[in-house]
Amino acid sequence: MSVGVVNAARLLGRLRTLGDVGRDGQGRLVRLAGSDADKAGRDLLAAWMREAGLEVAVDRIGNMFGVWRAGVDPKAPPVMMGSHIDTVIDAGIYDGCTGVLGGLEVIQALKEGGFAPRRPLAVAAFTNEEGVRYAPDMMGSLVTAGGLSVEDALASVGTDGAILGAELERIGYAGAEEPGFLKPHAYLELHVEQGPVLEREGFSIGAVATLQGISWQRVTIVGEANHAGTTPMSLRRDAGVAAARVVTFLSDRARASNTPTVATIGCMRFEPDAINVIPSRATFTVDLRDPDEARLQEEEAALAGYLDKLQDSEGVAISVERLARFQPVTFDYRLVAMIETAARTRGLACRRMTSGAGHDAQMIARVAPAAMIFVPSLGGISHNPRENTPDADIIAGASILLDVVTSLASE
Amino acid sequence: MSVGVVNAARLLGRLRTLGDVGRDGQGRLVRLAGSDADKAGRDLLAAWMREAGLEVAVDRIGNMFGVWRAGVDPKAPPVMMGSHIDTVIDAGIYDGCTGVLGGLEVIQALKEGGFAPRRPLAVAAFTNEEGVRYAPDMMGSLVTAGGLSVEDALASVGTDGAILGAELERIGYAGAEEPGFLKPHAYLELHVEQGPVLEREGFSIGAVATLQGISWQRVTIVGEANHAGTTPMSLRRDAGVAAARVVTFLSDRARASNTPTVATIGCMRFEPDAINVIPSRATFTVDLRDPDEARLQEEEAALAGYLDKLQDSEGVAISVERLARFQPVTFDYRLVAMIETAARTRGLACRRMTSGAGHDAQMIARVAPAAMIFVPSLGGISHNPRENTPDADIIAGASILLDVVTSLASE
Repeated sequence: MSVGVVNAARLLGRLRTLGDVGRDGQGRLVRLAGSDADKAGRDLLAAWMREAGLEVAVDRIGNMFGVWRAGVDPKAPPVMMGSHIDTVIDAGIYDGCTGVLGGLEVIQALKEGGFAPRRPLAVAAFTNEEGVRYAPDMMGSLVTAGGLSVEDALASVGTDGAILGAELERIGYAGAEEPGFLKPHAYLELHVEQGPVLEREGFSIGAVATLQGISWQRVTIVGEANHAGTTPMSLRRDAGVAAARVVTFLSDRARASNTPTVATIGCMRFEPDAINVIPSRATFTVDLRDPDEARLQEEEAALAGYLDKLQDSEGVAISVERLARFQPVTFDYRLVAMIETAARTRGLACRRMTSGAGHDAQMIARVAPAAMIFVPSLGGISHNPRENTPDADIIAGASILLDVVTSLASE
Repeated sequence: MSVGVVNAARLLGRLRTLGDVGRDGQGRLVRLAGSDADKAGRDLLAAWMREAGLEVAVDRIGNMFGVWRAGVDPKAPPVMMGSHIDTVIDAGIYDGCTGVLGGLEVIQALKEGGFAPRRPLAVAAFTNEEGVRYAPDMMGSLVTAGGLSVEDALASVGTDGAILGAELERIGYAGAEEPGFLKPHAYLELHVEQGPVLEREGFSIGAVATLQGISWQRVTIVGEANHAGTTPMSLRRDAGVAAARVVTFLSDRARASNTPTVATIGCMRFEPDAINVIPSRATFTVDLRDPDEARLQEEEAALAGYLDKLQDSEGVAISVERLARFQPVTFDYRLVAMIETAARTRGLACRRMTSGAGHDAQMIARVAPAAMIFVPSLGGISHNPRENTPDADIIAGASILLDVVTSLASE
């Protein structure tokens, strides 16, 4: 049905080759945005784009694009694929790179197969998705979507004190194009799941229909330290008990709900942390997620109301610090259905799903129809050198990407 | 009314002098049982006993006694006072020593005042109350009460590998007397409270009527780590949520009760302790106390039953390790009333109370009528160089001890 076939050896070979760029003295993969390692990765990607016969364009925030004009109306919005090639510290080789190199492979395969698209095809590598050196994360796609001015983004100061704009100049990736200069007809991002669902449930393909909104808060409860033996229950102001009440409140509420809301308390600390001393302070994180913004706000409000009452009932002082907040995203229904159809046609087990993590696609979704294709992450492991996806799943994901892009480029 | 008066300068001076014995290179007070520092403290105490005209006796476990025979029937059970002079690492000067030197001062004051007792008076310094170098704590009084054989106690291996029996030989305090050779008519222990109640409530004297039973356990809950974004609530095995349920269960139960039961979770640890990872493991301590053994056992059983149910309801594995267990003690009602009467007569504000901590008196209470007199600990601080009790309170406590001993020795 498709006029091109993914070249498995080429795609997997490029993933491994790029995965060796940016190894530090300890052998860790560290390709932080704007660094020398980032330049080396970008140079390699640009060379591969040119080798595939693509035009390479770079915008002011450093987003890179490989474009196959294909001799069609140059004003026609391209079908765009992409992701990022920057990494966390001590990263695996799949996160981000799978989507960029998968997109490049799809274009190259279609070209080689003699495909005649009705609109240009493009593959993007967005700057600083990981947000390790510069905040915020997903920066390049956020600027593209108009959520952050390019000037503010370029002025970002890195964890090492270096200004992003100066670093992009230095490594040769401060481009001339205005961010958003390529407005996609549609955007598709192939990505490793970074979670356990596909592997555990036996699916090769995830058709990502929504991306959860995320609310991260740190709650600090201050009570009063006292001797565990000599302080009657009625006189206690026990920060640990108050914290435990918040944990059970959030868990009970999320469990009782019929919604996909999830609530997690991952970090917890008691002070002074002594067996015979009533905790004077408890500090913990709250991770709330929901694919629906109104529900996420409801959950935040419910927590705030509970904390208010708790201050009185437990005699404690509670403060809350917001650590992160992202609105949920609903991906394009038609694109999601196309992914499912393509998987069915190829006989691949496909599951419609929500992304628990943030991705460039959530930013591009603000300005164009967008969706994501997930492939399994063994053990759900990511941001770790043990990150792994079987070769067959990488090729399956790239093939689904090829099928959907073929359809879209024929429109 | 009394025929003797506590010599404030002598008692306070001895407390400070003994408090300077056993300072380490950093100036910390460290007088661990059986050590050279312990020998130095014991030698000083023995010299003061002899200076007061007392016979010095040492039993096989190293308990020291200063006895005033007073020319009465040598078979008559003595009125005994006492406590311990071993310390924790980086101790204050009051814990234990107040009771030993207070008892010595009472005997000396009564002798000097021309008091003619009807029975001998004795002051005891029990070996290894703190249990820092050798386990268990309260060892000397436990052996005296028959709760541990002298052979087993002497065979104890210290944290430094030294055998207690050999250490007592080495420092010259492996005595000849069989533990328990002096069976008290009554036993009284003056001690700093080591808690905040007396100071906070404005009392100078605590008449200690009971000593709480203590149950210390460490609970480990093992669930499954998973991604906070991708794991539905229904599939979670969240060790942190299970731990929080235990905390609220214990707190709610103790609060709803009409008993003095107290329950404290002082230590709490989540693993892996990451904001976006469901806790795979939660480890926490449970400190349960009650002055009534049957109630303490009920509380332990209630916890065990709750943990059992929790394993099923939360899909977690729970293990419990017992860290310490002491039965509650009810002190002698008549002695407690005598303390209260003496305080009222002297116009001192006195509160009947429970001891939250363990003391030698709880062991001696197994074999003789016993009670304790508490004096305030500023800020509730103990086992710390900042441990402090105002001079006036030390003298007040010793004076009440003198009054009660005067009455008992006249019986």
